[in-house]
Amino acid sequence: MMRIGVDLTGGDNGSKPIVPAILEFLSKNSDVQVTAFGNKEELKELEGKCEIVHAPDVIPMEAGPLEAMRMKNSSIYKMAQYAKEGKLDAMVSAGSTGGFLSLSTLILKTIPGVHRAAFVAPFPTKIKGKKVVILDIGASNENSPEELAQFAVMGSLYSKYILGVKEPKVYLLSNGTEEGKGSPNGKLAYILLKDKPGFMGNIEARNALSGEADVVVTDGFTGNVFLKSSEGMAKMMSGMMKAAFKRNLWAKIGYLHVRKGIKEMTETMDYKSTGGAMLLGINGVVVKAHGNSDTYAFSCALNVAKKLVEEKLMDKIKEGIE
Amino acid sequence: MMRIGVDLTGGDNGSKPIVPAILEFLSKNSDVQVTAFGNKEELKELEGKCEIVHAPDVIPMEAGPLEAMRMKNSSIYKMAQYAKEGKLDAMVSAGSTGGFLSLSTLILKTIPGVHRAAFVAPFPTKIKGKKVVILDIGASNENSPEELAQFAVMGSLYSKYILGVKEPKVYLLSNGTEEGKGSPNGKLAYILLKDKPGFMGNIEARNALSGEADVVVTDGFTGNVFLKSSEGMAKMMSGMMKAAFKRNLWAKIGYLHVRKGIKEMTETMDYKSTGGAMLLGINGVVVKAHGNSDTYAFSCALNVAKKLVEEKLMDKIKEGIE
Repeated sequence: MMRIGVDLTGGDNGSKPIVPAILEFLSKNSDVQVTAFGNKEELKELEGKCEIVHAPDVIPMEAGPLEAMRMKNSSIYKMAQYAKEGKLDAMVSAGSTGGFLSLSTLILKTIPGVHRAAFVAPFPTKIKGKKVVILDIGASNENSPEELAQFAVMGSLYSKYILGVKEPKVYLLSNGTEEGKGSPNGKLAYILLKDKPGFMGNIEARNALSGEADVVVTDGFTGNVFLKSSEGMAKMMSGMMKAAFKRNLWAKIGYLHVRKGIKEMTETMDYKSTGGAMLLGINGVVVKAHGNSDTYAFSCALNVAKKLVEEKLMDKIKEGIE
Repeated sequence: MMRIGVDLTGGDNGSKPIVPAILEFLSKNSDVQVTAFGNKEELKELEGKCEIVHAPDVIPMEAGPLEAMRMKNSSIYKMAQYAKEGKLDAMVSAGSTGGFLSLSTLILKTIPGVHRAAFVAPFPTKIKGKKVVILDIGASNENSPEELAQFAVMGSLYSKYILGVKEPKVYLLSNGTEEGKGSPNGKLAYILLKDKPGFMGNIEARNALSGEADVVVTDGFTGNVFLKSSEGMAKMMSGMMKAAFKRNLWAKIGYLHVRKGIKEMTETMDYKSTGGAMLLGINGVVVKAHGNSDTYAFSCALNVAKKLVEEKLMDKIKEGIE
């Protein structure tokens, strides 16, 4: 029986949206056991439905690795310990990204042969329904060429087994398409990847979401900037769009006529349905739901965790890296 | 009399949109002399209005510095030579960015004391009419902490004298707001900048366009990724929005009611009105208009060049760096 650990603290909305997500998930997946980590006072509804581990301490959003390692009564620390002891196949949290990533890495360790774990997210693209896997989006601050080359392998396996892309096209995020463009380490990674199957060369940030790439490899600092600048621009534009629709009564009536199209657009852009981001390359399945996840978004994260376990992505990475 | 050199080759639309931009600019600025570099066959309309230098060769968009340096009959090469000989106060081109930046740097050289030139653009922000200066957006591939600290000085001077911000707030682009976050060189730049007036700390990419920052400092590779991911997301969203309005007759009618608001939105987002990007830190005023500039966008670029000369930004950088 598959065992998934769930952190019920730390998200922007605490345990509230997560409890119903777990209940719904369990009703659909009788073959999965959930262990809930959090303040047991808040988890009465889960009694009898899943194992409950009382771990009331919440790692602050901005906690560094040292602070996180010291909080041994935190839900994430306890959950990672459970995973290390072989009591969990996967972990899901909407809490502190830094705390979750660092505790997962420090306690579970990287898969033998993997230099560095990568934080991975599938992004929406211009092509409806198509996602592109971008990694690393912020587990590291810098990455060596060898690490980048391994990210290409891990991203490709994710694209293949989780998103169902037969022959994933892998690109390096760069400031030009020609060979010789790129960050200093990116240029060296290009040389390592050059003859690898599926490697298509460099891609510019403006085309990363065009749909041509299945996997885009970047160092963690740049990936984080990519993620957040895309997010910032998307928010800025939808804010301006909303303002346009609220100008006056006619604009509001106008909105009624375009809302179907707008709805399709927001669905394409919806990060919730992607189920959050994954930490790949460590000895365990680690899924980070968005901090402001609602029940739907958290359910998606649970489904992604299940799929990662089912597809044995960890074993595939182990083989792929060898 | 102020003398501005204009490259009439190389833009996506050749000399067509540029000739009327020059004529209009000259009609409004009788105190400026324009020297046009290009194929004189195409520049009959400019005869008698400005000096024409026959330089028919066009530097290809993707040319490297070596190739650009070899093309001595290219419009950009000749223009840079004129500038070096003191015959021009400013240069404007819509041609190859790489060619223009590298020839400007190689021929005009950096201002004494400036380690590296920075490619700079004012971006729109959420606050209507307010721009944020981001540099470097791609002149370099990597930058030392000292270079980043100098970018803060140059960006601040640009914000003050060209955009009229009294006390510009300067931030470092980072993956977190706390001190200690950032790329390896970014962290060291933080230490150099820490006690400088106007320095406010780190800013995440998602807030770079929020309007709180007047200047955002980054290395050229990351800046390029920031520029192009913002651009890519903006294009993707406006494409989806257009599709939403074209769905059916009702959506088209709906559009009629919201178009004023949409127009305001596109004006906020309009990169054309910013007049392109500038190369700061070299011995001359260098303005790069967007490759697909129309007459309006190119006119804005000419106005920016004029303002940079009038405000003696080069001299101010010289003093500021000392």
